[in-house]
Formats: sequence, structure tokens, C-alpha cells
Amino acid sequence: MAGYAQDKEAIGRRLRRIEGQIRGLQRLVGEDAYCIDVLTQIAAATKALRSVAIELLDDHLAHCVREAAERGGAEADEKVTEATAAIARLVRS
Amino acid sequence: MAGYAQDKEAIGRRLRRIEGQIRGLQRLVGEDAYCIDVLTQIAAATKALRSVAIELLDDHLAHCVREAAERGGAEADEKVTEATAAIARLVRS
Amino acid sequence: MAGYAQDKEAIGRRLRRIEGQIRGLQRLVGEDAYCIDVLTQIAAATKALRSVAIELLDDHLAHCVREAAERGGAEADEKVTEATAAIARLVRS
Amino acid sequence: MAGYAQDKEAIGRRLRRIEGQIRGLQRLVGEDAYCIDVLTQIAAATKALRSVAIELLDDHLAHCVREAAERGGAEADEKVTEATAAIARLVRS
Repeated sequence: MAGYAQDKEAIGRRLRRIEGQIRGLQRLVGEDAYCIDVLTQIAAATKALRSVAIELLDDHLAHCVREAAERGGAEADEKVTEATAAIARLVRS
Repeated sequence: MAGYAQDKEAIGRRLRRIEGQIRGLQRLVGEDAYCIDVLTQIAAATKALRSVAIELLDDHLAHCVREAAERGGAEADEKVTEATAAIARLVRS
Repeated sequence: MAGYAQDKEAIGRRLRRIEGQIRGLQRLVGEDAYCIDVLTQIAAATKALRSVAIELLDDHLAHCVREAAERGGAEADEKVTEATAAIARLVRS
Repeated sequence: MAGYAQDKEAIGRRLRRIEGQIRGLQRLVGEDAYCIDVLTQIAAATKALRSVAIELLDDHLAHCVREAAERGGAEADEKVTEATAAIARLVRS
């Protein structure tokens, strides 16, 4: 089961809203909107995507990593290594 | 005319690809994909959005800011202030 | 005991190197170096700081969060909430 | 002359303050401070560095890029390309 199971609906809704933001961006570009207005909307969509990522990370730590830690052993090490790699990718994206 | 006029087609295509990435994310979440796999795709979509923003900024500096600077006066100051604010929003997003 | 106990020396060394980078930045500015060269060095120092943060987060997950999870209970919840907040601050910094 | 000439003193002061933050980080690590407290201070120092970068970019656009645009020609193109590359490095740092 995914770590975000209990937030699945909410995350789906947020992603649909972000899809709408990306479509809004296409419309702006199609209408030759002013560069700065397009950039403002890109910053908003990026922020929204990052928020979803932070929510997913929270769920991942609270469920997948935590449960692996409770079971202990090599799997717990792997989960931590994997979570850190995901955080690094996010910070650098 | 928008600063990105000559890149309008390419930017539209990149945004459509990003829309596809966001739909792919909804599919992953709908299928209860593993958190880390969802996060990897979010990082990829964020990177793609940032790249479009950098392309737009480049076009904005090369056309809107540059042309305002050639005309001189208060408009040139405004364009620089506005561009810096957009860069700051992007860096912080 | 801090989660980074076993990496304490290495982290101290990396922070001293970053301190040297910041002093190098002051020297560049004092010598009226070209803006772009100063910006390149700021990006390098920022990257180095972020790398230290990711190392600290890894140690924190591998020790503090993991051990709290093994003990279970409310403390484990708190550690996850706290770690997510730190990740969010890092991503937004 | 550097684009930040008129802000040189203020930028020097901000960098000295950041140097103090980095030394504070070394002290925290030396005293085995709690990981999350160290991370909070790293996020603060990163934010301060980014703010200096945005100030420098603003000065660079307002002076170096703007003056090159007024002179026109290939130098103006180069300045824009160079500024965009610096922004991209900053966004990705």
C-alpha cells in the first residue's frame, strides 16, 4: 500500500488543479501574454508541485520509512537511503 | 509582441509535454504507485517547468528588457525591477 | 547524541570550506570583481551548503527518526512532523 | 566598474553576516546541537546567500546589461546570454 493512501483523493485533486494551471499556461502563451505574467504562473505551478512533493514525503516518512524502521534490519537502511535520494532530487529540481 | 514570440511553438510543445507529465502523475497516484516513484516524476516535471521559465526569462531579457534599455528612460528601470522580481519568485518557488 | 555524530568531523571540515568560500566572496566584492563571477561563486557556496544539509538530513533520518520509530509512540510522529518541516524549509530556502 | 558599485558596502556587510552564520553553524556542530536546529540555520544562511545573489543580479541587469543594450551590437547579446546562464545556475543551486 502506498504511504499516501489516506491522502490519495486530496493529492489527486491537487494534481488535477496543477494540470489546469499548466493548461492555463498554454493558453497564456497561445495568446502571446506578457512574459512576466507567464513567469508568475510558472512560479505558482512550481510551488504547487513542490507542496505535493512535500506532502508525499511526509506520508512516506510517516508510513513507509517508519514501518520499515519498526521492522528493523537492512530494509530500514534502504528506505532511509532512498528517501534521502528523493529529497536531494527534490531540493535540486 | 511577447518576448518569446519566435519560440512560441517550442514553448507550447514543452508545456504540452509537462501537461502529459502531470497526467502521468495522476495515473501513478490513481494506481497507488510507490511514493518514491511519484516523487521522482514530480522532480522531473518541476525541472521541466523551471527550464521553460529560464527560456522565457532569456527571451524576456533579450527582447523586452533590451529594447526598453535601447529606448532608455523610466521604462528601462521598470523592466529591470520587474525582471528581478520575476527571477526572485522563480528562485524561491 | 546528534544524528550526525559519526560524520561530525567531515561536516565541520565542509563548513570550514564554505566559510572560506564566503570569505572569498567578500574578497571578490572588495576587489570589484565582475558581477557574474561573484554570482558563480555564490551558486557554488549555496550548492555546498545544500549538500551539507542533505547529509545532515540523511543522518537525522538514519538515526533520530529511525530510533524514534523503533521506540514507537507519539515521539515517532513528532520526529516525522519535524523532519518534514525541515525538508520544506530546505526546499524553499 | 562592477554593476554593484553603489551597493558594495551593503553587500560586503551582508556577506560578513553570512560568514558569521557559517561560523555559528560550525559552533552548533561542534557542540553536537540537534540536527534539526543545524538544518534550520543552514536554511537561513542559504536564504541570505540567495538574497545577495538576487541583489547582485538586479544591479547587473540595471547597469551592465542595460548599458550594453544601450551600446547595442554583439556585446548586448553576450551580456544577455551570460545573465541567463547565471540565473540558471542560481535557480539550480
